[in-house]
Amino acid sequence: MKVNGIHYRTIWPKEGQPEIINIIDQRFLPHRFVVEELAGPDDFAAAIKDMHVRGAGLIGATAAFGMYSAILNGPESGFDTYIQQAAQLLINTRPTAKNLSWAVNRQMSAIAETKTAATRRQKAFTTACLIADEDADYCRRIGEHGLTIIKEISDRKNGAPVNILTHCNAGWLAFVDYGSATAPIYAAHQAGIPIHVWVDETRPWNQGAKLTAWELAQEDVDHTLIVDNTGGHLMQHNMVDMVIVGSDRTTRTGDVANKIGTYLKALAAKDNNIPFYAALPSSTIDWELHDGLTEIPIEERPADEVRLVTGLDADRNLTTVLSGMAETPTRNYGFDVTPARLVTGIITERGITPANERDILTLFPEHS
Amino acid sequence: MKVNGIHYRTIWPKEGQPEIINIIDQRFLPHRFVVEELAGPDDFAAAIKDMHVRGAGLIGATAAFGMYSAILNGPESGFDTYIQQAAQLLINTRPTAKNLSWAVNRQMSAIAETKTAATRRQKAFTTACLIADEDADYCRRIGEHGLTIIKEISDRKNGAPVNILTHCNAGWLAFVDYGSATAPIYAAHQAGIPIHVWVDETRPWNQGAKLTAWELAQEDVDHTLIVDNTGGHLMQHNMVDMVIVGSDRTTRTGDVANKIGTYLKALAAKDNNIPFYAALPSSTIDWELHDGLTEIPIEERPADEVRLVTGLDADRNLTTVLSGMAETPTRNYGFDVTPARLVTGIITERGITPANERDILTLFPEHS
Repeated sequence: MKVNGIHYRTIWPKEGQPEIINIIDQRFLPHRFVVEELAGPDDFAAAIKDMHVRGAGLIGATAAFGMYSAILNGPESGFDTYIQQAAQLLINTRPTAKNLSWAVNRQMSAIAETKTAATRRQKAFTTACLIADEDADYCRRIGEHGLTIIKEISDRKNGAPVNILTHCNAGWLAFVDYGSATAPIYAAHQAGIPIHVWVDETRPWNQGAKLTAWELAQEDVDHTLIVDNTGGHLMQHNMVDMVIVGSDRTTRTGDVANKIGTYLKALAAKDNNIPFYAALPSSTIDWELHDGLTEIPIEERPADEVRLVTGLDADRNLTTVLSGMAETPTRNYGFDVTPARLVTGIITERGITPANERDILTLFPEHS
Repeated sequence: MKVNGIHYRTIWPKEGQPEIINIIDQRFLPHRFVVEELAGPDDFAAAIKDMHVRGAGLIGATAAFGMYSAILNGPESGFDTYIQQAAQLLINTRPTAKNLSWAVNRQMSAIAETKTAATRRQKAFTTACLIADEDADYCRRIGEHGLTIIKEISDRKNGAPVNILTHCNAGWLAFVDYGSATAPIYAAHQAGIPIHVWVDETRPWNQGAKLTAWELAQEDVDHTLIVDNTGGHLMQHNMVDMVIVGSDRTTRTGDVANKIGTYLKALAAKDNNIPFYAALPSSTIDWELHDGLTEIPIEERPADEVRLVTGLDADRNLTTVLSGMAETPTRNYGFDVTPARLVTGIITERGITPANERDILTLFPEHS
């Protein structure tokens, strides 16, 4: 998508130096647009863990390039042990995100059959690029499928703006391009359908205020920032036509783990008969899991992410302030699980499916 | 309640100078404990509108003292017009809060029968003090009634800590003393019942992080700060035994207007079979209203309350930072309405009642 009118992806091999991988360091958005260079598995692990990059698809793509970087820097002897450790290092960075292990395992399979170090490196590079391209392509297709839902609502409203609420950032910044929740939004905008997006601020990291609002502004999509507490009130007053969120891990039964607070919006949507969709490439589906509430591990992150807020001070310097008290005991759960019963539908690269095992497997019969 | 071990109320006539009213200027908590002096209706109106004071009961008490201050400073001729204007000035500061008009009208009635300026001034002073004393006393009684609920849960849990979630600050800082939602918590703590409070941060003003966490720490009550998005996840995992919130306006049918986001917590409590209580002195009940969703006006506040966060910087100076972008369109609704069907019970100064008109009127038959 566009940054100041120029097309970017969130991750790409540096031109002429493909052993270096470029990412947009999202910690500085929207105030600074910083491109970071990663080389070696430690760089990639830190970038994921400390949230230079975040979001289901982008975490997967970063892990894929991280494996490539590990393979590039691996020793000739003891390679198997080394690469297992690198794989574990990357997988352990964020416990809830399914795409991590998915991407790492795909790289492990890809290199398993290679005979020489050179073909291994080549295979790892093409696999990482393939994962990134696929992620972008799947998101583009999610956009096409989701567009039909928005179009229906728009027709029903006789072209009055369709009000879409989204939580966190499942935008292009969370993937390689397009985004999952935002892909139908961008597709609708490009199709000339009037839309307006309610952007949840998304505490504690403020992905909504810092990332979603920024990318929607870059693409010229009408939007309004609200605090996370607001969605229920808007839904009670017919100010939301649909909810679209992403997912960091999805069970085969349609339970959706997404940014903490998603469950509350799903409850409010249900209470007000508003359709609630999760948009996700199938790479976020954990085909092993049947019960999201008991089986999906929920990441806990540092308390200071809640206590401290970073932004521009009056001199436009990036400054961190302590809103409450440093000594207040604080817990910081990263995700919650929205049970399938609250999900109207799941928008995937293959189409839209009701959130239940039978229908999901109809779209993905290879996992039956 | 206590501030560094010394007993305070949130509002009191200055010792030896009762024409000046002291308040705790809550904008600086928890970082600075600032006592402000108010004199003249404009001071009081600004203190309410700009949230030097906030919270149902305290807004009412401040308006009562504001009327006293207006009466004190009123002209001999044209007094009726003057006092009507002062009354309107105070009522108009915050549209959702019922206690404002309740306190102002009570002052108007109190002075209606006075014959001289001197008796009017005296009557206005004693009425303001009475309203403040009553507010504290009613909150104390709410504590006694609510204590029985906490005790029951504690008994059922064989004395394991009772986990109580609260949203915003319906603490003593929101009233004259004790608080509404916190009164049962303080009563339980004093009764030696082990409790633990989940404190919602409460965006955008962070009343939870700045006020509730501070007052619970001052009273040595075990608590943990969470972002507003977290409560649903905790409830799904049996980490919440009950929810208690306050109310800024309550219908005779039991609909509860409270800080934005309360409705979302009520939905989650319902979905997980967790009791959800609103604790409120009857001064917040608007006996004219039957349908909270259509009849209670919801205040909209400045967008910068969402965009900007104030806290201590690294040098411990109070600094304001812009978290997202100054140009992002932003809406800031102050309250939402939780329908009576989601409210397990209402804890009032006269006892606990189910949230429906018949039962509420059984406790308050004078409003039948």
